[in-house]
Amino acid sequence: SRSIRLAVIPGDGIGKEVVAQGLKVLTAVLPQDVKLETQEYDLGARRWHATGETLPDAELESLKNHDAILLGAIGDPSVPSGVLERGLLLKLRFAFDHYVNLRPSKLFPNTATPLAGRPDIDFVVVREGTEGPYVGNGGSLRTGTPAEVATEVSLNTAYGVERVVRDAYARAAARPRKKLTLVHKNNVLVHAGHLWKNIFDQVGAEYPEVTTDYLHVDAATIFFVTQPERFDVIVTDNLFGDILTDLAAAVTGGIGLAASGNINPSGAFPSMFEPVHGSAPDIAGTGKADPTATVLSVALLLRHLGYEAEAARIETAVAEDLAERGGEVPRSTDEIGDALAARVSG
Amino acid sequence: SRSIRLAVIPGDGIGKEVVAQGLKVLTAVLPQDVKLETQEYDLGARRWHATGETLPDAELESLKNHDAILLGAIGDPSVPSGVLERGLLLKLRFAFDHYVNLRPSKLFPNTATPLAGRPDIDFVVVREGTEGPYVGNGGSLRTGTPAEVATEVSLNTAYGVERVVRDAYARAAARPRKKLTLVHKNNVLVHAGHLWKNIFDQVGAEYPEVTTDYLHVDAATIFFVTQPERFDVIVTDNLFGDILTDLAAAVTGGIGLAASGNINPSGAFPSMFEPVHGSAPDIAGTGKADPTATVLSVALLLRHLGYEAEAARIETAVAEDLAERGGEVPRSTDEIGDALAARVSG
Ligand SMILES: CC(C)[C@H](C(=O)O)[C@@H](O)C(=O)O
Ligand SMILES: CC(C)[C@H](C(=O)O)[C@@H](O)C(=O)O
Repeated sequence: SRSIRLAVIPGDGIGKEVVAQGLKVLTAVLPQDVKLETQEYDLGARRWHATGETLPDAELESLKNHDAILLGAIGDPSVPSGVLERGLLLKLRFAFDHYVNLRPSKLFPNTATPLAGRPDIDFVVVREGTEGPYVGNGGSLRTGTPAEVATEVSLNTAYGVERVVRDAYARAAARPRKKLTLVHKNNVLVHAGHLWKNIFDQVGAEYPEVTTDYLHVDAATIFFVTQPERFDVIVTDNLFGDILTDLAAAVTGGIGLAASGNINPSGAFPSMFEPVHGSAPDIAGTGKADPTATVLSVALLLRHLGYEAEAARIETAVAEDLAERGGEVPRSTDEIGDALAARVSG
Repeated sequence: SRSIRLAVIPGDGIGKEVVAQGLKVLTAVLPQDVKLETQEYDLGARRWHATGETLPDAELESLKNHDAILLGAIGDPSVPSGVLERGLLLKLRFAFDHYVNLRPSKLFPNTATPLAGRPDIDFVVVREGTEGPYVGNGGSLRTGTPAEVATEVSLNTAYGVERVVRDAYARAAARPRKKLTLVHKNNVLVHAGHLWKNIFDQVGAEYPEVTTDYLHVDAATIFFVTQPERFDVIVTDNLFGDILTDLAAAVTGGIGLAASGNINPSGAFPSMFEPVHGSAPDIAGTGKADPTATVLSVALLLRHLGYEAEAARIETAVAEDLAERGGEVPRSTDEIGDALAARVSG
């Protein structure tokens, strides 16, 4: 009989609330014969305040024994900026070599977009997850003095760029429109930019059926608001991907719907699935958090583990739920979770 | 009698066309007693193809003898990406220590915004212009091989950050809403981010009347489309400022209206004014280019040189022109220039 050994990191703020709904929907969608074993990890602001730990080695080791990780949200204003992000969230992405940071963007029916005319939006950003300005290769000299110098180094390797570019081409080739856009800033960041562009062009030769395009990141943000329907698959660097996917979430009805997967396609380490949104301490505990992004992240998780039918069922449930109820009075975190669980367990 | 010694770099593509209109309006707005001496510099793609030069030392020296520089646009697809950007445009910004890259964003009446509900947008981005990931401190090893490594270093100094942060506070203090937002990514780029945030807080203590706010760059892009009216003055790093100001231009009716100043507030070197848009080779020569961004850049230029009344006259002319004609059939580059020149020479 089949089983899923799932690590759950609820994290901070609304993280716990949305993860509870994600698990509810996961339980509802799974076939009877699939055994779901969850193990919760107490990581995040509370743990750090209590013990000073962000991600102890023992926990990191233990996490390896799971098929996948479901994460809610990490971060709290009471913790100095960067401590949990670098010490926990990014540490997981780097330690588990999550080089494909997958972020689909779709404008569902009845969702409020700030864009006039409701363009047709349905693209996916493949954000590199293990290199670029995120590597943590920086420092500061004479810190806190008027003579301070602080650096941040963006590291990019052919090895790292090629594997994520290949993944993006494969995804583009599998979609009806077969279009792939590289976003970078190769007119200024010429070294990293040329590495990306050369590999993009080289790998492209193996995918003659995929139409390609290059945009500078600044120009890409313009098209995100004026012509988002032009995008199909986007591949980009870690930092540009961070920025673009928040913007993508905003134009597709908000960060409450944006799902993501931190994927290690080789399967050497567990992949991690999380909503793009943060811990939103301002609404934690109020029942106002929308768990849909987490539920959609569960769909990505299921697809990654080979449960394609179940993933699709969740996505359909979300689309139908929004189509029928999206324009209505706001529902609580629980109510949305219940509605989605009911739909998938049809 | 007063005089303005103006260097003009029309550059590539639509650069020439929009600069011609900028000069037309400048001539029309200036009082009789102000002598305008212009000197044109032939720099850009044509020159590079002909001679291999981007910005020869003699030209750089000569440019110093002007009170200000008006630039159209630089760049052409026939030139490898980065050659003109790094060798000419950025070289000027760095050589002349243009540390305040000033980019106002205003949603004028009758201009097409992609945002539903037409929010009230009137903010200014103070983008750092001489540091960050733009310093050109990068390289690559084993270039073109599967073992390539490419780096880009973001350099940030207390000296460089403090001066631009001070400039931004002064601008915020002089505006009715007195609000300043720092945008960075200090939860990931912790060294550069903490430098920025510390200086932002320190200088803020001298401006108790200015309300302050901090946003991560990814979150800032969300607010640019969902709540742009929340911004008054934004201060940010060179790269984040590049990205945010294109997005700002997009939400305020397009890159055809976005003006900018590359300012050296000390006056040690001439400041440079240019539209945010590029050379748009696809529409060069068609008369479709909107010269308004260049005309508004001329207003910034005049304000910088102390001609406040003339700067305001141009801005009023643009606002009135758009209010009266904005919704109409498209006008040619020349027609818009003529209309604005007529208005300011009242
Ligand atoms: C919290 C932060 C470290 C993270 C990132 O920058 O990647 C977040 O913004 C995201 O997009 O997942
Ligand atoms: C052309 C390019 C070098 C430039 C920049 O990145 O600064 C442009 O995008 C701008 O915003 O002025």
